[in-house]
Amino acid sequence: MYKIVEWKKDKVVMIDQTLLPTRVVYRTYNDYKAVAKAIKELVVRGAPAIGVAAAMGIALGAKKIKQTTLKDFKREFKKVATTIAKTRPTAVNLFWAVKRMNDIVEEFTGVNIDTLKKKLITEAKNIHREDIDRNKSIGKHGGRLLKTNSTVLTHCNAGALATAGYGTALGVIRGAVAAGKNIKVFADETRPVLQGARLTAWELMQDNLDVTLITDNMAGYMMREGLVDCVVVGSDRIASNGDVANKIGTYTVAVLAKAHGLPFYVAAPTSTIDMAAKSGDDIPIEERSSKEITHVRGKRIAPVGVKTLNPAFDITPARLVTAIITEKGVIKPPFKAGIKKQFAKKKK
Amino acid sequence: MYKIVEWKKDKVVMIDQTLLPTRVVYRTYNDYKAVAKAIKELVVRGAPAIGVAAAMGIALGAKKIKQTTLKDFKREFKKVATTIAKTRPTAVNLFWAVKRMNDIVEEFTGVNIDTLKKKLITEAKNIHREDIDRNKSIGKHGGRLLKTNSTVLTHCNAGALATAGYGTALGVIRGAVAAGKNIKVFADETRPVLQGARLTAWELMQDNLDVTLITDNMAGYMMREGLVDCVVVGSDRIASNGDVANKIGTYTVAVLAKAHGLPFYVAAPTSTIDMAAKSGDDIPIEERSSKEITHVRGKRIAPVGVKTLNPAFDITPARLVTAIITEKGVIKPPFKAGIKKQFAKKKK
Repeated sequence: MYKIVEWKKDKVVMIDQTLLPTRVVYRTYNDYKAVAKAIKELVVRGAPAIGVAAAMGIALGAKKIKQTTLKDFKREFKKVATTIAKTRPTAVNLFWAVKRMNDIVEEFTGVNIDTLKKKLITEAKNIHREDIDRNKSIGKHGGRLLKTNSTVLTHCNAGALATAGYGTALGVIRGAVAAGKNIKVFADETRPVLQGARLTAWELMQDNLDVTLITDNMAGYMMREGLVDCVVVGSDRIASNGDVANKIGTYTVAVLAKAHGLPFYVAAPTSTIDMAAKSGDDIPIEERSSKEITHVRGKRIAPVGVKTLNPAFDITPARLVTAIITEKGVIKPPFKAGIKKQFAKKKK
Repeated sequence: MYKIVEWKKDKVVMIDQTLLPTRVVYRTYNDYKAVAKAIKELVVRGAPAIGVAAAMGIALGAKKIKQTTLKDFKREFKKVATTIAKTRPTAVNLFWAVKRMNDIVEEFTGVNIDTLKKKLITEAKNIHREDIDRNKSIGKHGGRLLKTNSTVLTHCNAGALATAGYGTALGVIRGAVAAGKNIKVFADETRPVLQGARLTAWELMQDNLDVTLITDNMAGYMMREGLVDCVVVGSDRIASNGDVANKIGTYTVAVLAKAHGLPFYVAAPTSTIDMAAKSGDDIPIEERSSKEITHVRGKRIAPVGVKTLNPAFDITPARLVTAIITEKGVIKPPFKAGIKKQFAKKKK
């Protein structure tokens, strides 16, 4: 079984998602700056996986700090955390993970820096383990929403590869299958970075699940032909009102689902919910390189010098969302109250 | 200025649209079977351009028939026409052009086969010339619908490259610009064959028109951001009730336009209207090779053995269409009556 992000012999090991599905290559990182670069360049991607990689990157950076007083250590630690936090703007799990690591340092009262370093490594491993557990819970809750012999359309990759393992949207599918249901999947290829074609198709095929790859612009056709029963996607950040930031094209799929009377489900751990964001308007949308549009896998497909726009995410307003599935259960509208309630539960 | 399809020194010359925009290569055809292959393999594409290429291919095939009696000639001609007609199923202009060429043979009463061959070449040239004239009329009528300082979103390529010249959807944009209006264009890249990225972006840049290339799944985002004022697309076949067959993804754009209250215009010559098709249900949808989905410009982007679907077209129901623009004017709903009226006018 492939691993997505791992803490191994005091190094960070990640499967290189930029090379999938044609090559399966693992990269070993011994430097937090290289981890930051890997996050930026999509070696690891998917909001929960970014969170895990960020935590491990910080643990790696912290481990190598040479300063021995707590004050000096904290100054160096801040550099590490800031570098990791600056990699990508939209996925809130990144900032959530950075905060968890930071809290460990802030709460530290001991004098032995080595102890603190070990605590940070443990916390990164906890974030990793908890993410898998959370995804399995998401799968259990969400799996109940899927009918047997139904076809789910998904966009981008919110699978094992987008998380520590098991996946969010694909976790829901895995949960339904684990409950004995017969589920087929349509995977949107998801231009420009082709996470659907390269990652979702690959990981579902690894599990012998029934997946059919289509181009993004075929989703409407498939729905009109009656070939889709519901949509399940992941999220990079959910505002407190239920607006959902996710891979560019998610909003288009949501509009299509609404027009065809199909349920539109969002699966994400509570670490993806940003209570500070009142609505989608508060979520920054990353604009990525023009080359992602003008080239595919290194091959030029557009005229030299053509103008492009490349927003990597879009906002699906809460009114188009049927339910949000977290590890704590299924939230139905009105989302503001439901989300608040789950967060109240969270405080143990 | 680039030419799309041309009758030159008793041969057919076409720009190879599979190589654009990275290479501008003209191919010369001296054999109707090679023209048929070129149509199949998208060297020439776009409903009106396919019609012109079909007529020229038939003229080429007819010219080379060695049989000297009318009966023998007709038998050989039928083979030529059938080969050309079988290349692609959706664009009705193909069958319309074959019929026009066939009518020349059917109506022929002379004894000199050479005269008939010349008549066929003349008819093919007429189809070519008329198509450009029709597109300029479409541009004049349609250009009036566009407001100055507005942004048009278009899907696929319904430009000069899809016709004998000037274009249908892009003809409307050229018509508005010719009338002094300031128009910006969003071009959907149009997976899987990337006619938007490769052809629409290229030909608009050749004319110094303001074009921004986006992936198909960004159309919804751009509309929600208020960056799109209307949609103009071409068509491969329009049913008598106003249902529109066009490049896969057009239906998705039409649903999005409706959801955002934006006009959705279809520009096509009357040769694209199929009075025999009562609705979109009567229009065959071509299913193309899986390789178009799994590879981009020869590069594999999906796992080996992945299942795919590849419908090359979809149907946009008439209820999502704001107006159909033909060379005879603008048809508004109810389309059935409006289309019938234009066809009554047609009979001179």
